[in-house]
Amino acid sequence: MNKHIDQSEFQTPQVTTGPLPASRKVYVRSDRFADLRVPIREIDLHPSANEPPLPVYDTTGPYTDPDVTIDVEKGLARPRTAWVLERGHVEEYEGREVKPEDNGGAQGKYLAREFPVRNRPLRGTGTGPVTQLEFARAGIITKEMEYIAIRENLGRKQQLEDAEKTIAQGESFGAAIPPFITAEFVRDEVARGRAVIPSNINHPELEPQIIGRNFLVKINANIGNSAVTSSVEEEVDKMVWATRWGADNVMDLSTGRNIHNTREWIIRNSPVPIGTVPIYQALEKVGGVAEDLTWEVYRDTLIEQAEQGVDYFTIHAGVRLPYIHLTADRVTGIVSRGGSIMAKWCLAHHRESFLYTKFPEICEIMRAYDVTFSLGDGLRPGSTADANDRAQFAELETLGELTKVAWDHGCQVMIEGPGHVPMHKIKINMDKQLRECGEAPFYTLGPLTTDIAPGYDHITSGIGAAMIGWFGTAMLCYVTPKEHLGLPNRDDVKVGVITYKLAAHAADLAKGHPAAHLRDDALSRARFEFRWEDQFNLALDPETARDFHDQTLPKEAHKLAHFCSMCGPKFCSMKITQDVRDYADGLSDNEKAMLYPTDKNQPHPEEARSVVTKDEAEKGMEEMSEKYREMGGELYLEEDAVKKANRSL
Amino acid sequence: MNKHIDQSEFQTPQVTTGPLPASRKVYVRSDRFADLRVPIREIDLHPSANEPPLPVYDTTGPYTDPDVTIDVEKGLARPRTAWVLERGHVEEYEGREVKPEDNGGAQGKYLAREFPVRNRPLRGTGTGPVTQLEFARAGIITKEMEYIAIRENLGRKQQLEDAEKTIAQGESFGAAIPPFITAEFVRDEVARGRAVIPSNINHPELEPQIIGRNFLVKINANIGNSAVTSSVEEEVDKMVWATRWGADNVMDLSTGRNIHNTREWIIRNSPVPIGTVPIYQALEKVGGVAEDLTWEVYRDTLIEQAEQGVDYFTIHAGVRLPYIHLTADRVTGIVSRGGSIMAKWCLAHHRESFLYTKFPEICEIMRAYDVTFSLGDGLRPGSTADANDRAQFAELETLGELTKVAWDHGCQVMIEGPGHVPMHKIKINMDKQLRECGEAPFYTLGPLTTDIAPGYDHITSGIGAAMIGWFGTAMLCYVTPKEHLGLPNRDDVKVGVITYKLAAHAADLAKGHPAAHLRDDALSRARFEFRWEDQFNLALDPETARDFHDQTLPKEAHKLAHFCSMCGPKFCSMKITQDVRDYADGLSDNEKAMLYPTDKNQPHPEEARSVVTKDEAEKGMEEMSEKYREMGGELYLEEDAVKKANRSL
Repeated sequence: MNKHIDQSEFQTPQVTTGPLPASRKVYVRSDRFADLRVPIREIDLHPSANEPPLPVYDTTGPYTDPDVTIDVEKGLARPRTAWVLERGHVEEYEGREVKPEDNGGAQGKYLAREFPVRNRPLRGTGTGPVTQLEFARAGIITKEMEYIAIRENLGRKQQLEDAEKTIAQGESFGAAIPPFITAEFVRDEVARGRAVIPSNINHPELEPQIIGRNFLVKINANIGNSAVTSSVEEEVDKMVWATRWGADNVMDLSTGRNIHNTREWIIRNSPVPIGTVPIYQALEKVGGVAEDLTWEVYRDTLIEQAEQGVDYFTIHAGVRLPYIHLTADRVTGIVSRGGSIMAKWCLAHHRESFLYTKFPEICEIMRAYDVTFSLGDGLRPGSTADANDRAQFAELETLGELTKVAWDHGCQVMIEGPGHVPMHKIKINMDKQLRECGEAPFYTLGPLTTDIAPGYDHITSGIGAAMIGWFGTAMLCYVTPKEHLGLPNRDDVKVGVITYKLAAHAADLAKGHPAAHLRDDALSRARFEFRWEDQFNLALDPETARDFHDQTLPKEAHKLAHFCSMCGPKFCSMKITQDVRDYADGLSDNEKAMLYPTDKNQPHPEEARSVVTKDEAEKGMEEMSEKYREMGGELYLEEDAVKKANRSL
Repeated sequence: MNKHIDQSEFQTPQVTTGPLPASRKVYVRSDRFADLRVPIREIDLHPSANEPPLPVYDTTGPYTDPDVTIDVEKGLARPRTAWVLERGHVEEYEGREVKPEDNGGAQGKYLAREFPVRNRPLRGTGTGPVTQLEFARAGIITKEMEYIAIRENLGRKQQLEDAEKTIAQGESFGAAIPPFITAEFVRDEVARGRAVIPSNINHPELEPQIIGRNFLVKINANIGNSAVTSSVEEEVDKMVWATRWGADNVMDLSTGRNIHNTREWIIRNSPVPIGTVPIYQALEKVGGVAEDLTWEVYRDTLIEQAEQGVDYFTIHAGVRLPYIHLTADRVTGIVSRGGSIMAKWCLAHHRESFLYTKFPEICEIMRAYDVTFSLGDGLRPGSTADANDRAQFAELETLGELTKVAWDHGCQVMIEGPGHVPMHKIKINMDKQLRECGEAPFYTLGPLTTDIAPGYDHITSGIGAAMIGWFGTAMLCYVTPKEHLGLPNRDDVKVGVITYKLAAHAADLAKGHPAAHLRDDALSRARFEFRWEDQFNLALDPETARDFHDQTLPKEAHKLAHFCSMCGPKFCSMKITQDVRDYADGLSDNEKAMLYPTDKNQPHPEEARSVVTKDEAEKGMEEMSEKYREMGGELYLEEDAVKKANRSL
């Protein structure tokens, strides 16, 4: 049932604002474009760390900037409108009238309040480039590209300047990750279709971001009300909440009534690209009867949403009539909602899908607003049993064919992927996608690596997501603990985002992303040095880390104590390691060589073998002094250190 | 601080009993040994499923059998004593006196109550085989081996008998998983050291279980009080709770006072093997001062714990003096507690570790009670930065050397592994372990694939665990959300266990374990057919799955409704798929071939390409009837079905 919505009851959405713990928003200026300000979050460390603040990628938009006044009724500032206008080849026009069916016919007290501000939309005039792909091909570096180059470079400069540190190792499976990201590199990756910058010209509130195999792995959070539950206020709050914890993109998957108005509130307040599945709204417009869908209704919906500023559309154009019967023997048939709708339509009319037959016309609309294609996998497997079957791969081959059509029209394209796939079948998906789709970015849901853990599918899928991200997927669509069971609430959204952030980061590390390990190393140092506050602040979720710690050791003084809650105050492994370090510092190189011969020119450790024998070791020991004993003593906390620590907390 | 414990305050541990939802414990009898009863859990499905109950592996012991009266004060029944005695070569003896230092000197109201029953221990006489390895080498099939063969076979018979189903595909990286497990196979795997059956002759309460690469992947849950927090009652409850959710093994990592008494309560009530790290207790006996440890104190502790019935000991005998300085340049030094203790001892005395020099004597003790070695990785990396370094691999090479020594003494051996390892460095660990340690079972902690998510390290490590389990790790040591932050409580234990169960199962699926997919498929069918109750009951955690569902759609009637909570009652993708299936049923083979030519003899789908062209497809469509339209209609719930469903709920 629809929630009872009354205009008088409608509340201004409450969103979470303010900086994250120990964090400041810093804006980096561009040398190329004076008006660019690229936000970065800097995490301050405890003075005892003697380390500079750690810069981290920031998806949170102005909500974490105390200098910006947030007014959800007005929406965010729209700096990108000027960028679009100065490039030309666009026109402002009146735009489509909002019709009652746009909100599912909701009326009176059931109609969600309209967003208070109405902007006239822009569209391409067809006289020159409009999409980022068209600009890139023309050799033009847009402000979006420059913005992204600065944004992605985070930490790399430091990495390169620090001669002591080696460039990260990794296995990238053929990706081409440069040590330093330039605007030219961004442009070239977009030009060859290997990366996309979802950025509808009518969503000037967004902070540009790139999705591609040679950039940081991105994540997407799904929100949206359903016919059964939730409201506009909740969805706007979830969008801001998801970006607060790291969502790079948000999809509004609303169904039921009030889709149009809900979306307008979301987009006007979103600092990240917003994606949708337009067929959901089209279906509502024809009363939920798939057979009654027409190209005209769908086309009208595309324009409606493009004018609002949706940045990418999931379009299930690969669900072709000839493939539908291939799903009949599946354990779980067709589980994609969009795929099911189109399958039903195809069967009812015994016609090829209009998404396929009208694909060139769809491209023209996408191009006019620079809406990025997210070619949907309507035949994705809904169970591990159905993974990598003929239906799935037949569709993927068609998506490859359509990618080229979209590129010919100047449109940006990414490709959606599964779903439910056991581990040993994951890499095949990635390899085939790269081959079929000309390296267009892959955007996968999970995949879930087993079906037996409903309630924990953020984890069953986080495993698959980390792996496929490593193999080359450019964006991971999150899965929340409520997957298969219900609509995610605020807490589920956070757990889903954090899980996918850590999966994406694990992928970046494994790919050998040059600066990815800087945060791991900073946190590991904090852990080793018992800087609890730093450990919390550097964590993806500082609040949960602190809360878990405080459940065992709630005292403030413990936050800088030289023991951890697992071992207690008397014995701690990390404290002992301090002694080891002091001991090793006292050994000469000759002494070390006597103990365990090492050679920096030796092959990679996993190939090397230790060659020291028991006899050799004993001989070495005899010759060595009792240095350690002299250093001796326990390293209990000195009172001074505690005082100093508490002062700064 | 130690919790205040008063004899009068001591409560009998409260544990959770009773069957899991829709589950019955079934005992399978052996043809070979008339007294064997192997427990299996059967999950009943809704009558509309028309499927037999699904058998699943059962770690829960008698606690889920309503016919067994549980009395924690008496402990579980001890059937294995008779098995051990009838094999001979053992003697009952008085056993070591419990000393005050066994409980850290706790006295009076600080001393935890002794377990009420005292059993005289058994030990090998040296006149013949005692360990499972010795029996296996002698060609003898023990009752434990037969028990395990029946236990592991779960579902495989059904699988093999069902000619319609194909044997699971998978990639096992050189493992040799047979379609059917025989007692002879169990024996042979144990004989060659490729599997272990942790089963101290003084832990006759346990239900035998095997750990090896060619068997189901097992998981271990760590519990244990610390000097800072928790009590005997909590730890016994956690042990039962962990096995209820699927822990195959439990390690008691208690520190501080009352270690002896806590352990006795745990072992006497444990249906699964119990592991410990004896150096923890030895350290308590010398007042927490690592330098004061002696071989005599350690040896006495081994015997104390072996007499109590500990099934496997973590022994960090690979932390050799010559390797210690290799950790000095690490980001996080030595993070293993056992490793740190021994490093400190080695440095203080400037001597080789007594665990290494006295290793043959340790073997003699292990053999006399059939305690399995878990050779500890005291130099494991504590951060991704330190993964796969020389210190770690030098130790692993030594563990390989010690494996052969232990085998020569007739002892069972497994090898512990990391730790913190980025994804691209995981497989190297597995491959090197197999090579160095003669395929002895690998038992890994995680590994954590990134350091930046404290509070979510069950997930950062679940990713690594699933992968290394796939690659060949035989047992995965769980990590809870509290890792690095505090001691896990009951809820954390459950989340850790479920996370590792799903990781282990994902590994079994990917390895191509013959029957692993039966549960996935049963759950997927339940999902597809909207049998919500079955979906919950088949889940690893039925309670959480049900709870999450009910948060969105609390009505009982919805549990068999033909829509899910994501889509609402009007439109549901799964319902549409029913239509597709009906449609495909109506197509002749010729019609199907016209649409999309498939051939069962074609190569594996990922290699095949679809060959249908648009023209071919259109030609096919023209020739086809309007079958689908005739079938038509929505498939809403019939009242009858709802009534029937509710009746059985």
